[in-house]
Amino acid sequence: MTENTSNTPRRRVLSGMRPTGRLHLGNYMGALYNWVKLQHEYECYFFIADYHALTTDYADPSQLKQNIFEIALDFLSAGLDPKLCTIFVQSHVPQHAELHLLLSMITPVSWLERVPTYKDQQEQLREKDLATYGFLGYPLLQSADILVYQPDFVPVGQDQVAHVELTREVARRFNHFYSPKRIVPGGNGSSAAVEPDPNYLLLPEPEVLLTPSPKLPGTDGRKMSKSYGNSILLSELDGDVHVKLQGMSNGGQRPTQHDPGDPDICPVGDMHRLFSEPIVLEHITTGCRTATIRCDECKFAAANSINRHLHPIRQRRQELEENPDKVWEVLDQGAVRAAARAEQTMVALRAATGLSRDRSGVRMDRSATRPEDQKDIRDLADFKDWWGLAPALLSRNLREVWRKNIVPVGTALKQDTEGVWLTLNNRRVFVAVATQNAGEESWAFSVKPKSYEILVLLCWQEDLQIRDFVIPQKLYVAPWTSAKKAAGKNNINFEVARVEGRYVLQLPDSAAIDITDTEAEYDIIGN
Amino acid sequence: MTENTSNTPRRRVLSGMRPTGRLHLGNYMGALYNWVKLQHEYECYFFIADYHALTTDYADPSQLKQNIFEIALDFLSAGLDPKLCTIFVQSHVPQHAELHLLLSMITPVSWLERVPTYKDQQEQLREKDLATYGFLGYPLLQSADILVYQPDFVPVGQDQVAHVELTREVARRFNHFYSPKRIVPGGNGSSAAVEPDPNYLLLPEPEVLLTPSPKLPGTDGRKMSKSYGNSILLSELDGDVHVKLQGMSNGGQRPTQHDPGDPDICPVGDMHRLFSEPIVLEHITTGCRTATIRCDECKFAAANSINRHLHPIRQRRQELEENPDKVWEVLDQGAVRAAARAEQTMVALRAATGLSRDRSGVRMDRSATRPEDQKDIRDLADFKDWWGLAPALLSRNLREVWRKNIVPVGTALKQDTEGVWLTLNNRRVFVAVATQNAGEESWAFSVKPKSYEILVLLCWQEDLQIRDFVIPQKLYVAPWTSAKKAAGKNNINFEVARVEGRYVLQLPDSAAIDITDTEAEYDIIGN
Repeated sequence: MTENTSNTPRRRVLSGMRPTGRLHLGNYMGALYNWVKLQHEYECYFFIADYHALTTDYADPSQLKQNIFEIALDFLSAGLDPKLCTIFVQSHVPQHAELHLLLSMITPVSWLERVPTYKDQQEQLREKDLATYGFLGYPLLQSADILVYQPDFVPVGQDQVAHVELTREVARRFNHFYSPKRIVPGGNGSSAAVEPDPNYLLLPEPEVLLTPSPKLPGTDGRKMSKSYGNSILLSELDGDVHVKLQGMSNGGQRPTQHDPGDPDICPVGDMHRLFSEPIVLEHITTGCRTATIRCDECKFAAANSINRHLHPIRQRRQELEENPDKVWEVLDQGAVRAAARAEQTMVALRAATGLSRDRSGVRMDRSATRPEDQKDIRDLADFKDWWGLAPALLSRNLREVWRKNIVPVGTALKQDTEGVWLTLNNRRVFVAVATQNAGEESWAFSVKPKSYEILVLLCWQEDLQIRDFVIPQKLYVAPWTSAKKAAGKNNINFEVARVEGRYVLQLPDSAAIDITDTEAEYDIIGN
Repeated sequence: MTENTSNTPRRRVLSGMRPTGRLHLGNYMGALYNWVKLQHEYECYFFIADYHALTTDYADPSQLKQNIFEIALDFLSAGLDPKLCTIFVQSHVPQHAELHLLLSMITPVSWLERVPTYKDQQEQLREKDLATYGFLGYPLLQSADILVYQPDFVPVGQDQVAHVELTREVARRFNHFYSPKRIVPGGNGSSAAVEPDPNYLLLPEPEVLLTPSPKLPGTDGRKMSKSYGNSILLSELDGDVHVKLQGMSNGGQRPTQHDPGDPDICPVGDMHRLFSEPIVLEHITTGCRTATIRCDECKFAAANSINRHLHPIRQRRQELEENPDKVWEVLDQGAVRAAARAEQTMVALRAATGLSRDRSGVRMDRSATRPEDQKDIRDLADFKDWWGLAPALLSRNLREVWRKNIVPVGTALKQDTEGVWLTLNNRRVFVAVATQNAGEESWAFSVKPKSYEILVLLCWQEDLQIRDFVIPQKLYVAPWTSAKKAAGKNNINFEVARVEGRYVLQLPDSAAIDITDTEAEYDIIGN
């Protein structure tokens, strides 16, 4: 983070790798090599995914700690610089497990079952029993790993794009439930929609940062892979690279060394293209096509090129091996830094899901204990900045004040659709907010022509108080029914007014109904 | 914890409750009432299961924080004493989420699918979408909630016994993988078995402590339940208890007040049996059977009895409501205490699963960097107390030393069955340990007549060194094959001896094989 000279915060990047042993050149060129570049440009978090190793290798974790150490050595040897990026072990940052659990609440099992690698891996690793809850959940753990840092980008290869897509879906669903909302006005007669406010998303959807992963053959010409036993390690000794290169496949070309070959279809040629200087590449290309160099010379040259690349990596590794505590210190400090960033996310998420550890939002049942405090729960003085809001959003906010502050504590009411709540025995309570302040003494409403067992009318005046009338159906059912009929598909428009010290409900073409005694009468909702 | 006057540690108890709103008398008599008694006898941890509330109510957590507060008030009002027990909120102790994730690795999905309440609840709460990963995993979260405190007992009602059974199964499976093992000698020719040592279990299986949950009818005569709307709250006001009792069902008895009734089949009678003094119970029983008291008198008396019981509870609640920060302080301190106990469990579990945050067990690749250190990895001086162990257990320990300390770092070898490892390309490596120390210069072996691609022979001398010979199949295949044939179903017995400075393998009826050069030759295993 020392190289960021501008004042704009760097965009954040998160990636991880399973500790399965020492990395080979394929792992290196496919990911780590790119990470080393990214650390100069982005705020980077790179982690060692030890929980993920357990999802498949839970039966024998005896090598896990050693593998964590080996991959940390590989990270640092390859050039990840703890001054530029944050390197840590997944399980050392408890927020990963916490977010995983929280995301599990909203994630359909079917989303996880359809992740392409789920069935594939169960097939491929048939000797392991992967019908576990943990293995089913590993893509969700990945989502938590990513989202807990709220990164802008996730650098992955093409094969991991599906996992990031799941992460984006999970984030979207989480935001749908818990992020602050805004109202999008409907056009052309369609009604307004409520959606997560893009400026205040709890979990912004990260973008894929596709990183190049060049073709890197193993010594037998197939893709380099630990399980094929055809790898060259990042920590391979100089001489071993030579021995492995000499044994490398040339793609079955040049049956005799007098025959020319085609370096473009030769695995050794691939190595030259990745690791050799132009002049060397030129030399072996010409030599191969004209049969003027032998394969063993070409392989020797490739081994030299690889070794030139590995030399500084090996040197750093040797320094670290002589000072292993230094590696652990990097991981310790990385975990502290990562946890600090992750905690920043979790604080907001806990607050939005009712899990925050403070007492904010908890209220006493003042109606039961201190009647003299009744009034201030209806005070609007704190919400002066609301009066510029769009009417739909203002209504939404006032309904939230009503549910949070005014409905007596412990009343069982669950939200059904916008504006409608259900009581324990499924009676529908509709909460209507005055659409305009028609002066000091009257309030206008405009609501859909539907039936509700209980109507709550919220009358408000700027800077003053909410008045809430809780009106049982029997009190308004007759005029309401005729007003509904008259309205057809249009809204019913009606008014509440203060007349001679009483509050009256005036439905269209009907006698006024005195609702004064229904004010704050929540007993009819019950618990 | 102040009342424990003896020196034996009290046995530990763990239980929790979902925060779904204020508790009613059914919740109280079914659990909380028992908890209040348990706190005097056991080391008790009682938690508010806020994550569990989210498993079903994730779509609207707006009441969660309030409900947490309400149930904490109920806990304390009912008489849970933070000086005697630990009261906390589940999500405030991050070890719950951590253990949940760790247990997920080893828990088959099928175990969770077959939990009886899983399908039931999905049916019952059909209006909620419960096809989530979190809802599927809630019994496992319960297991983590319990096991993280390593309790002796879980006080539950009959309906929760299945959940505790799952917890015990999960603990057993965890111990199977990760707890220290012991050897149980086989009797009558059957071979010895390896099993978790019952003295060193990581997760002891907790026992069910069945608590009485008396029949408690709601005001309509059905079981008292929030969703029936027939509850009397623990925090109910005096007058409201009277109102609710007056409206209570008498089971359809006494069509006129001149008809006698049977209090044994009357819901109001149930209330008397739970809350009334013997003299009152006697009075209403006689009065009802003889039609000498009216139902309203009987109900009035029942309400009085309930109120006498609720009076101190209400008084404590009112004191706490006037000092809400005190409640939060109890929860804060409870979380600190609970987390300290949970961390004790997790430290051991992390160490056993490779997740511990220290560097213990990690070794440098000395063979690559410091050849002069080669010798001490084979030193047995640290293990003097092993020589009294049963031969099978000693062999097991030595094989672990071999895998952990002697096999070069980064060698990919996965354990298959006892004594057998697989290389990357699935060659079988059998590690045989000398069964007896046949003196200073020879070692006896006795192994099953099977075939292996590589044979590792561990020759050891007390307080000295392990010598390890890594013998490729080609070196011993011919005499081995005839020895196998001769052995039939018996073990092959053979010897390694030092002869004139060389080490030789003597298989039955064959010429000696010089294995000196195979000592510590791990290149043939490869990586």
